[in-house]
Amino acid sequence: MTTIGFVGLGNMGGHMARNLVAAGHTLKVYDLVDQLNESIDGASPQTSGAEAARDVGVFISMLPAGKHVADLYLEAGGVVDSCRADTLLIDCSTIDPETARRVSEAAAAKGMSMLDAPVSGGTTGARAGSLTFIVGGPARALERAHSILDSMGHNIFHAGKSGAGQIAKICNNMLLAVHMTGTAEALALGIANGLDPTVLSDIMRRSSGGNWSLDNYNPYPGVMAGVPAASKYADGFLVDLMTKDLGLAMAAAQASQSSVPMGALANNLYRVHQQLHHAGQLDFSSIQLLFAPELKSE
Amino acid sequence: MTTIGFVGLGNMGGHMARNLVAAGHTLKVYDLVDQLNESIDGASPQTSGAEAARDVGVFISMLPAGKHVADLYLEAGGVVDSCRADTLLIDCSTIDPETARRVSEAAAAKGMSMLDAPVSGGTTGARAGSLTFIVGGPARALERAHSILDSMGHNIFHAGKSGAGQIAKICNNMLLAVHMTGTAEALALGIANGLDPTVLSDIMRRSSGGNWSLDNYNPYPGVMAGVPAASKYADGFLVDLMTKDLGLAMAAAQASQSSVPMGALANNLYRVHQQLHHAGQLDFSSIQLLFAPELKSE
Amino acid sequence: MTTIGFVGLGNMGGHMARNLVAAGHTLKVYDLVDQLNESIDGASPQTSGAEAARDVGVFISMLPAGKHVADLYLEAGGVVDSCRADTLLIDCSTIDPETARRVSEAAAAKGMSMLDAPVSGGTTGARAGSLTFIVGGPARALERAHSILDSMGHNIFHAGKSGAGQIAKICNNMLLAVHMTGTAEALALGIANGLDPTVLSDIMRRSSGGNWSLDNYNPYPGVMAGVPAASKYADGFLVDLMTKDLGLAMAAAQASQSSVPMGALANNLYRVHQQLHHAGQLDFSSIQLLFAPELKSE
Amino acid sequence: MTTIGFVGLGNMGGHMARNLVAAGHTLKVYDLVDQLNESIDGASPQTSGAEAARDVGVFISMLPAGKHVADLYLEAGGVVDSCRADTLLIDCSTIDPETARRVSEAAAAKGMSMLDAPVSGGTTGARAGSLTFIVGGPARALERAHSILDSMGHNIFHAGKSGAGQIAKICNNMLLAVHMTGTAEALALGIANGLDPTVLSDIMRRSSGGNWSLDNYNPYPGVMAGVPAASKYADGFLVDLMTKDLGLAMAAAQASQSSVPMGALANNLYRVHQQLHHAGQLDFSSIQLLFAPELKSE
Repeated sequence: MTTIGFVGLGNMGGHMARNLVAAGHTLKVYDLVDQLNESIDGASPQTSGAEAARDVGVFISMLPAGKHVADLYLEAGGVVDSCRADTLLIDCSTIDPETARRVSEAAAAKGMSMLDAPVSGGTTGARAGSLTFIVGGPARALERAHSILDSMGHNIFHAGKSGAGQIAKICNNMLLAVHMTGTAEALALGIANGLDPTVLSDIMRRSSGGNWSLDNYNPYPGVMAGVPAASKYADGFLVDLMTKDLGLAMAAAQASQSSVPMGALANNLYRVHQQLHHAGQLDFSSIQLLFAPELKSE
Repeated sequence: MTTIGFVGLGNMGGHMARNLVAAGHTLKVYDLVDQLNESIDGASPQTSGAEAARDVGVFISMLPAGKHVADLYLEAGGVVDSCRADTLLIDCSTIDPETARRVSEAAAAKGMSMLDAPVSGGTTGARAGSLTFIVGGPARALERAHSILDSMGHNIFHAGKSGAGQIAKICNNMLLAVHMTGTAEALALGIANGLDPTVLSDIMRRSSGGNWSLDNYNPYPGVMAGVPAASKYADGFLVDLMTKDLGLAMAAAQASQSSVPMGALANNLYRVHQQLHHAGQLDFSSIQLLFAPELKSE
Repeated sequence: MTTIGFVGLGNMGGHMARNLVAAGHTLKVYDLVDQLNESIDGASPQTSGAEAARDVGVFISMLPAGKHVADLYLEAGGVVDSCRADTLLIDCSTIDPETARRVSEAAAAKGMSMLDAPVSGGTTGARAGSLTFIVGGPARALERAHSILDSMGHNIFHAGKSGAGQIAKICNNMLLAVHMTGTAEALALGIANGLDPTVLSDIMRRSSGGNWSLDNYNPYPGVMAGVPAASKYADGFLVDLMTKDLGLAMAAAQASQSSVPMGALANNLYRVHQQLHHAGQLDFSSIQLLFAPELKSE
Repeated sequence: MTTIGFVGLGNMGGHMARNLVAAGHTLKVYDLVDQLNESIDGASPQTSGAEAARDVGVFISMLPAGKHVADLYLEAGGVVDSCRADTLLIDCSTIDPETARRVSEAAAAKGMSMLDAPVSGGTTGARAGSLTFIVGGPARALERAHSILDSMGHNIFHAGKSGAGQIAKICNNMLLAVHMTGTAEALALGIANGLDPTVLSDIMRRSSGGNWSLDNYNPYPGVMAGVPAASKYADGFLVDLMTKDLGLAMAAAQASQSSVPMGALANNLYRVHQQLHHAGQLDFSSIQLLFAPELKSE
């Protein structure tokens, strides 16, 4: 078993840390929010991120945005300055690829290996230990990380070198937003023309319109049980988080002069929805509300 | 076995008629293009659509657009005037739902049952007898049609009452255009940021970005064998046909005051592609060319 | 002065007919809605469109859609069958260019000249006699029409041959929808970042962002007096009419395989707005509500 | 006359500095590119930005992006550290509003006044001294700046407090991109349907479609003399600069959770155009090429 430093004990990180403790690892944990430091039974609370990184085999972070990651790792006396050269660094935050690359270069300059390993699966996956990791960084570092990541998730993809985990996650989530929005408007078009949403969903799911949203996460209420659409879009993958990820996708497109018209439109439709319906804390499949006025009055 | 009238012996209809002959049915066939009338071995050529419809158990049409269907069935001395009240009418054309409904109502007024049964699967599916039928009309009529349709295809979906087959096909193909375009731009964004298209495709396919395009029809050359992208987008489901179907979707949305922003954008991106790249006769996955300038020089 | 047949006495046509009477012309009028036939003082009510077209120097129609125009002019015993060869036909309806061309060809086949002359200016312009006419058809016919049109409006543009009036109006209104929507979102972006809408409007109006919406029809409440935004978007050019015109633009684009991505997006944003806000009877500058959530609670 | 420090002597800044010298001011100039330092006759070259800022009444910068501005002003020993408290700081760069605010706050903390004063008018306007300034910052500082700015431009707008100049310019240019793109597609739609671009332009310009592009900068070749469309879109306001400004608009929208669907679509259409046509160094009205395939073969 390994001694692991873990920084960021929020909605996602808390569950991930607990799963690591449950797997038998020794954890040194830290969060800027004081009361969270005591929230992981069996872990040893620290007074700073740098403290949590000192003398550990693996160091893991789970933070909201690129600037938090840059501060944690790069500031004077931060993680890169404080940990041993043989510590494996794993950042599980979803952030801009540029920061991911910059931090991993700074780590490499001191001899450390670093992985960017953003996750999907949400708080449900974090609690259940069934997250998906999309990883960028050296293959050998990923080998070392495998058993640790296995304690927190099932699927581990190697996307490429440093930053590639972030890029792949951004691309995936942009595509998710596109087919979810497209699915919602296709269902609304069918319904407005007299079709039953369950029948239409079934036809499209088994035809060339098929996609993950139709298979696992139908946005129209009444078609599937156990999805957010079945409970007024409560919880799930929040609109606020989807728009955060779409913002990262748009920034990556801008930086690489890529055109992403469908992703950009989905992003802006989510913004309209977020503002008009105060929908930031609803599941992202609630984009259905933008197209199905009959749902508004319910 | 049944005596079947069949009108429309083009790229699709020709194969379908041959499969019906091969299944042992007796065929009376007709096409406006003279030489096509002799193209179905074992079928008996007629001098008009009305002739083909006379004294048959089932009458099938496969035509380019709503106006052809309306003319064939509705004009004085046309199919509705000429066939027996117990003839089952099946229109396999992809047309506007309004015309589909209008024709089936005229047929019903004379006591006949009619199905709108647009297909997917393209010329490959038509030849192989593996088409998908998306059917609108009375359930009892579909029961009667089942054994006939089975000679031409594998999957038969019942979408609802008259016109519902057209609506469901339109919705499905609009969603297909959305996720294909979204997939193409997500791949291009990943590639522009250093990712390998095969690795990225595999990650998204197995994650929440998953969709039919990624599973069966990857638009980026080199990722999949046996798809149009592997042979310079030759054949397949042509851009000219995709834009035709998207035009039907837009018209249906306009008629029902539905908003379909993602479908409309996909439609217009296909138009840009069609014109700038003279791409009408390329497979629809060639939309990749709009996002991946590196492919243009190959 | 001229004897004029006039069919279509609704919101627009009623005012137009009254202005023709006021200018001293002799009017024979007809509307499908019985009570409207008595609504034009000084005009002589007829029992059908064909009656109104009989023995007149000029025949004018103002109808909701292409199918009404086609029926009026083309059906057996209709206007084209009933009027003299020297009658000048003027259709002021906003309809699809294809119908406009088809009707004028039928008229030409009987030796008559016909103009398509859709208007802009709304009911306000119709009442005040200050409409704009965008005219398609032979230049010589337009010369004959000039003094008649002058009684109803100020600006008369000759767009080209038959159907060109419809095309030009469609293009203009699509562009109007684009810059109105763009203006609304630019204002909202500025306001969300602390700018005053009046200051920002003034800067953009006098800079390269300048457009008709900013000059005459500011969509943000409080910036201009006397515009629909100043009175909760009541009256004006209704969203229902803008989406009708945008539908014609989309159909024309589809028929000519043109790409109109910005127009199509504006169209779909208007549809979202129309449905979510039950906005069909609001002025089209109310699209501002889609972007400025602070206005919703007022 | 005033002693002015001026940093950034590129395509824009060089002309601006020369106009200040011509107006009789004493200039201390600096650029990172060595040879540019000698390019302003009558100005005194310096060895660093901080040197240029020492002991001047006014300090002006004209740099490519936010990071250059932040470095120049904020790094240890930079401009804010080096200049007198009574120096008026004017940044004419087009950058993100956040950096503009951050720098002006740092300046204010040392008692200095600062304006963000991005320009429009391009190199032509810079050379001719006819730029437009859109200014954010204290009104009193703008009063002090007026006579200086007058030497470089004609129109001076006060948009609001610090950062407001950047916001207003971003909003204006986003709206410009929207109506230019909309104009290009409206013209293409008309032409594809038989209209003459000059006739259609004239009609729309004088109707509700009117906008700055139609008035001053028609994108279709042959309609106007003296515009970039008349000379194969050479020079003018480059696509590379328009996409830079649109990128700033998208980032501002993301930061304020604003929806800007029309601006985002224009941005992405410019990206498609930039990549497919290698159009970065063409004038931005060349977006016409995306919609008018007939122009490609010329």
